[in-house]
Amino acid sequence: MADIIIKNGYVLTMDPELGDLKNGVVVIDDGSIVEVAESTEATADTVIDARGGVVMPGFVNTHTHAGMTLFRGYADDLPLASWLQDHIWPAEAELTASDVVAGTNLACLEMIKSGTVAFADMYFFMEEVGTVVESSGLRAALSYGMIELGDAEKGKNELKKGKGFVNEWNGKADGRISAMYGPHAPNTCSKEFLIKVKEQAVADNAKIHIHVLETEAELNQMKEQYGMCSVNMLDSIDFLGPDVLAAHCVWLSDGDMDILANNNVNISHNPVSNMKLASGVAPVTKLLDRGANVCLGTDGCASNNNLDMFDEMKTATLLQKVDTMDPTALPARKVLEMATVSGANALDIKSGMLRKGYNADVIIVDMNRSHLTPLFDVPSQLVYSAGGSDVRTSIVNGKLLMDDHKVLCMDEQKIIDDAKEAASDLVARVDAKN
Amino acid sequence: MADIIIKNGYVLTMDPELGDLKNGVVVIDDGSIVEVAESTEATADTVIDARGGVVMPGFVNTHTHAGMTLFRGYADDLPLASWLQDHIWPAEAELTASDVVAGTNLACLEMIKSGTVAFADMYFFMEEVGTVVESSGLRAALSYGMIELGDAEKGKNELKKGKGFVNEWNGKADGRISAMYGPHAPNTCSKEFLIKVKEQAVADNAKIHIHVLETEAELNQMKEQYGMCSVNMLDSIDFLGPDVLAAHCVWLSDGDMDILANNNVNISHNPVSNMKLASGVAPVTKLLDRGANVCLGTDGCASNNNLDMFDEMKTATLLQKVDTMDPTALPARKVLEMATVSGANALDIKSGMLRKGYNADVIIVDMNRSHLTPLFDVPSQLVYSAGGSDVRTSIVNGKLLMDDHKVLCMDEQKIIDDAKEAASDLVARVDAKN
Repeated sequence: MADIIIKNGYVLTMDPELGDLKNGVVVIDDGSIVEVAESTEATADTVIDARGGVVMPGFVNTHTHAGMTLFRGYADDLPLASWLQDHIWPAEAELTASDVVAGTNLACLEMIKSGTVAFADMYFFMEEVGTVVESSGLRAALSYGMIELGDAEKGKNELKKGKGFVNEWNGKADGRISAMYGPHAPNTCSKEFLIKVKEQAVADNAKIHIHVLETEAELNQMKEQYGMCSVNMLDSIDFLGPDVLAAHCVWLSDGDMDILANNNVNISHNPVSNMKLASGVAPVTKLLDRGANVCLGTDGCASNNNLDMFDEMKTATLLQKVDTMDPTALPARKVLEMATVSGANALDIKSGMLRKGYNADVIIVDMNRSHLTPLFDVPSQLVYSAGGSDVRTSIVNGKLLMDDHKVLCMDEQKIIDDAKEAASDLVARVDAKN
Repeated sequence: MADIIIKNGYVLTMDPELGDLKNGVVVIDDGSIVEVAESTEATADTVIDARGGVVMPGFVNTHTHAGMTLFRGYADDLPLASWLQDHIWPAEAELTASDVVAGTNLACLEMIKSGTVAFADMYFFMEEVGTVVESSGLRAALSYGMIELGDAEKGKNELKKGKGFVNEWNGKADGRISAMYGPHAPNTCSKEFLIKVKEQAVADNAKIHIHVLETEAELNQMKEQYGMCSVNMLDSIDFLGPDVLAAHCVWLSDGDMDILANNNVNISHNPVSNMKLASGVAPVTKLLDRGANVCLGTDGCASNNNLDMFDEMKTATLLQKVDTMDPTALPARKVLEMATVSGANALDIKSGMLRKGYNADVIIVDMNRSHLTPLFDVPSQLVYSAGGSDVRTSIVNGKLLMDDHKVLCMDEQKIIDDAKEAASDLVARVDAKN
């Protein structure tokens, strides 16, 4: 007797070997997918009828700051410097552990409701984030964001905190949580610090999550300081490899792209954030042409302002099309692959595909909706027409987190109310100081 | 006794004189708004509790081809020529009146569900479109799309059809429907034809809906044919004025922008379509700087692929921000204004604002959702975080079309099923021919 059988749905496996099943079944047992087929002899405790729906791997959001969900809409349409210095940093300075709990709970709720099954996070109070993720049922790759700013003493403490988190949390929650090192960026951490981080990460067999060339300002600062850009500097210290998840990567030269691709660096593309903050357009099609593993991330809610991977997919392809002036750029199935398969590869998890032996990280998207009618091509419909609210069921590690739009793993209204209260208290504290 | 009172909501009036009411009432009687205030002494047949919601003017979608909703996802990620010549045109050649009825019903359903109260349409079988719009309860400015291609005889017939439609439908459905002339574009209609259209429109006191400079190909063709671009050619025949709704306007020079602004031409910006078809980026901020009336449109579903004005608002501001490399470009309240006030101005309807004496075209957006929490700034939340599915109530001309997500004016499942069947039959006919 299996745990769950999903039947009668269009099964978008994202598995190039199996292809799509117009009417198929997915059988789940003990956290894993045990069968994907046209039909099955298996029986299960729970049978889900996915008629009129698409059964597919859930999304992997490869770059976010979940705690920042508390800052959704707090400071928009501002110059970058004012946004950071006058709003985000003062608010972050007042942030407490319980604020991060409230924000991360809210983020997990939103992700479950919109079809994300795993995410890569970089923030503060990461023990609390780990506890929230563990109880949410989601899968995550968590990193404590280390900002050293060339201060050796500070660097020592940051690395200690990062290491403490990695050692305690890597592999926790039945393997749903992995812990990464999170040096913030090449222009906020010195070369010497980054060398130490890399050594420690290799020693601990942990991966690294870092921002790279998000802005032209970073590019200019690096050239000023090192006479070379971030990618060249990181390459010069043998930092780059398949263990590195590099977020943004907007300001890349052709040579930088070669280096990232040749070193199998995972690149998290965040188009909504890059547009909203006017950071620029990442050369995604060129990176893909070089065989780089490019996945998708929403970034934090202060620069998006949601965690909806459907939004991110549509924006990613629209932006590449208009930027390259080629309407065939980044077709729907490719951008779906970025949001699932490539994201799972980046986090080194057996998710992102419906295949026997893979994690049972599965969602069902309801297609019986006016804005999803008629249905000619499933990937097109998902990328160009659908939204997070069309997700009706979410399963992570074989556990039903949401069924028929009802969240089963958390008290939705309480999380919304707690987040409202935490945000309002936080702003009152910030206002009192300023 | 009024018809409807909406109370307890945050009232985003979009009226610069009144401003927002954090907790207000909107009183509706006989199709119009009769009071917008903090509180009221009025009573009504229907009282709607908008607690936790935003009460605002519904959206005005100023450029679409509703019948094309039947082609949603039919042909994506293709080169423009192949998309049109190998897919859209052959399918349109097989299109029957009943297909357009099915597609337009589907479009109206989707628009009601996502908060659009009025739209400007250009397509074929417009009598049938008019009948669908009349029964849907929506407001619309409809035009028969005339393509003359320099053929005088064809032009005569097209203008006759256009005039027939205008004369029959202008002001119908208690004034909810206006009829416009719809010459397709300056490169698909000759100068002589456009002169005749303008004369006829002035004589009939009807407005004109036309595509202008959507693609670089049009610009090149016009320069080749006339030695000047579309805007200059239209200006040379005194075509341009506040009675003209010009869709796209992507390939504008600074001089073109001056001409459009000085002639008070209404410009429908369609960012999703322009990105998807790789047409380019319209210079929206420059047009706004010149005081032009720029509104928003989704274009048809074959190039979007939905009719969600929230999507369009977010994409509009993101695209301007990254294109101008200025994160302050097109702030949330401005883009909301484009989607409401400016759209209503373009169609010359007293909608787009909650003000005494205006049409009761009102929506309620449910903000008690994880992805809309916390709530610091209402315009930011609507533009950057919300989606069409957050609209819970829609009122047009004082009539409740949707309440608490339940569509009252049409049979939702029947319209979805009819559209599926029509689309499937249509494709079978196209395939049989090719």
